[in-house]
Amino acid sequence: MDERVREHARTLVDWSARIEAGDDVVVRVGPDAHDLAVAVAEELGKRGANVVTTYASGEVTRAYLRAHEGDFEADPEYERALLAAADAVLTLGGGRNTAATADVPGERRQAYDRARREIRTARLDTKWVLTEHPTRSLAQQAGMSYEAYQEFVYGAINRDWEAQAEKQAKVKEVLDDASEVRLVSGDDTDLTMSVEGRVAVNSAASVDYDSHNLPSGEVFTAPHATEGEVRFDVPMTINGKRVRDVDLRFEDGAVVDYDAAQGEEAIAEVVETDDGARRLGELGIGMNRGIDRVTDNILFDEKMGDTVHLALGRAYSSNFPEGREGEANESAVHVDLITDVSEDSRIVVDGETMQADGRFWFEDGFGE
Amino acid sequence: MDERVREHARTLVDWSARIEAGDDVVVRVGPDAHDLAVAVAEELGKRGANVVTTYASGEVTRAYLRAHEGDFEADPEYERALLAAADAVLTLGGGRNTAATADVPGERRQAYDRARREIRTARLDTKWVLTEHPTRSLAQQAGMSYEAYQEFVYGAINRDWEAQAEKQAKVKEVLDDASEVRLVSGDDTDLTMSVEGRVAVNSAASVDYDSHNLPSGEVFTAPHATEGEVRFDVPMTINGKRVRDVDLRFEDGAVVDYDAAQGEEAIAEVVETDDGARRLGELGIGMNRGIDRVTDNILFDEKMGDTVHLALGRAYSSNFPEGREGEANESAVHVDLITDVSEDSRIVVDGETMQADGRFWFEDGFGE
Repeated sequence: MDERVREHARTLVDWSARIEAGDDVVVRVGPDAHDLAVAVAEELGKRGANVVTTYASGEVTRAYLRAHEGDFEADPEYERALLAAADAVLTLGGGRNTAATADVPGERRQAYDRARREIRTARLDTKWVLTEHPTRSLAQQAGMSYEAYQEFVYGAINRDWEAQAEKQAKVKEVLDDASEVRLVSGDDTDLTMSVEGRVAVNSAASVDYDSHNLPSGEVFTAPHATEGEVRFDVPMTINGKRVRDVDLRFEDGAVVDYDAAQGEEAIAEVVETDDGARRLGELGIGMNRGIDRVTDNILFDEKMGDTVHLALGRAYSSNFPEGREGEANESAVHVDLITDVSEDSRIVVDGETMQADGRFWFEDGFGE
Repeated sequence: MDERVREHARTLVDWSARIEAGDDVVVRVGPDAHDLAVAVAEELGKRGANVVTTYASGEVTRAYLRAHEGDFEADPEYERALLAAADAVLTLGGGRNTAATADVPGERRQAYDRARREIRTARLDTKWVLTEHPTRSLAQQAGMSYEAYQEFVYGAINRDWEAQAEKQAKVKEVLDDASEVRLVSGDDTDLTMSVEGRVAVNSAASVDYDSHNLPSGEVFTAPHATEGEVRFDVPMTINGKRVRDVDLRFEDGAVVDYDAAQGEEAIAEVVETDDGARRLGELGIGMNRGIDRVTDNILFDEKMGDTVHLALGRAYSSNFPEGREGEANESAVHVDLITDVSEDSRIVVDGETMQADGRFWFEDGFGE
């Protein structure tokens, strides 16, 4: 087996999920994530954890959902029991077709998800981690050869996470003490947000850091009182539609105007979802420099080094002090949009420049 | 999708497992049984059943078991809870290598199985069915091309099971009323067994018939007081070793002598396991004429039309009247051995010939 797969498995089991002897671990295996599943099973065996592997196939889900008419049973007990008693849930993404469920009617999918709220909550109450095995399907989505894509994925995942976490801690500290963040980039972006009363999350790809993605590598908080305009120049796919060069204008915290060079209707659909969809739920600063290109996969794109992403919609409760989670922006959606800040850009916190042209204040080359 | 896969799925869900709306169904998916899993999910969706798919990979199990040192936790609660609350467990076999677990130490495997007794019991308390998707690995084991193997498998599985069950019912009726069965074949087989006080099972590939294999197609009972000799001329693999032309001689119900043209040490290992391993646990009459050749897969071989199989070791409690299950032969093993009865052979029940040269008394060509 490829040594990089074993390292991925060790990172997932040790750093990300903090698996201990006796842990009851559910491993959800994508159809093409077999090799990673084997490596993870070996690591779980070594640690004396227990393992149940489930099969996470988009094609199986599609077949089931399309054939199922009428109401879905709420939280089937056998699946709820499995997850309620589990200590950790490791999702090993890796399908054969990123569009496998494209012809499942949206309402059917939503009804299914709504019927499974307790199951979802039970999963989120464990040490859960989402990662992806590099597959040919994801390589294709990225427009990359399989070998080059593998290099890319392992460059993003098999990192010195301890060092990454320390670097990110500096940014978290500044944001926690801050009241205002200003983002300036090129001619089209000058945005001011309040982060007063918010808690930044040092998302270092470990449950010990409130971080559930591998790779991660970002610091994020929940902004409010947003004013100004922003251009998102990193192309992406939203609900199956390509979008490029999205412009948003905010007044009093809400979007008052938007356009896009491509996919404006996808943005319209998001913004019109509900009131919360016009407000920001997240300001994220991408700091994973192992991710050095766009691969049309949000798990990777939003953590790309020298980018900033803002999400329209739902905020994470982890960005609020205990007892104040109720202040979180609510919405049915959470849609990330990304902008490159590696050139002609500044992130300014309470008047002090935190990052200029992709360099943080504590890095060589800052301000040069 | 191949229409034969859909028919397999319908047979499994309707005839075999009798799935109803609201049933909580666990589907165990072999790594190469994906297409069958998709077809089964569609049938479960149509019927309004619930579905949880687990990933049944020999390579994952091998990696886990080889890495795990020390004791296994007894019946991990999360997996026990899943199965205890399930109504049905459908196992879709289909690996990529039938020898995937060949280098797992036997004691490790046995310790793992012993630690999971309640989990196993919970599974056997559901409407459980074991079937196999035709894979290239199984085709190779059968010495067949993939296309020819598919034809073979669907010929065995996609049958008129109602008609098969009716035919088998006739044989069951005779055996239920019988006290003595005599098997005569060629110069090397003349064996007498008692079936007094036993209940024959009409194994018609449906939980409604106490039958949990798809394909099935046999009638079996639990013989005792075996006397005489028998040659098993159908070659097979026992614990990874090829065996051919096994001869057994019985006195007072127990093996007193054995030899084999090939693999005698495998037979020795079985017979020496424990006292019960010297006695018969099963007499099975193979009646699935869709299975017309040996494929080195016991799930198929033992149901082959015009064969008889005898198992050394453990008997099934379903062959005993209620309250008398304690009379069942006990052993750590249950090893089937098969003999061809299509030519120069008779099965005689209480002095009356039930089958001659592969024809039953109720069939055309009997006694000709």
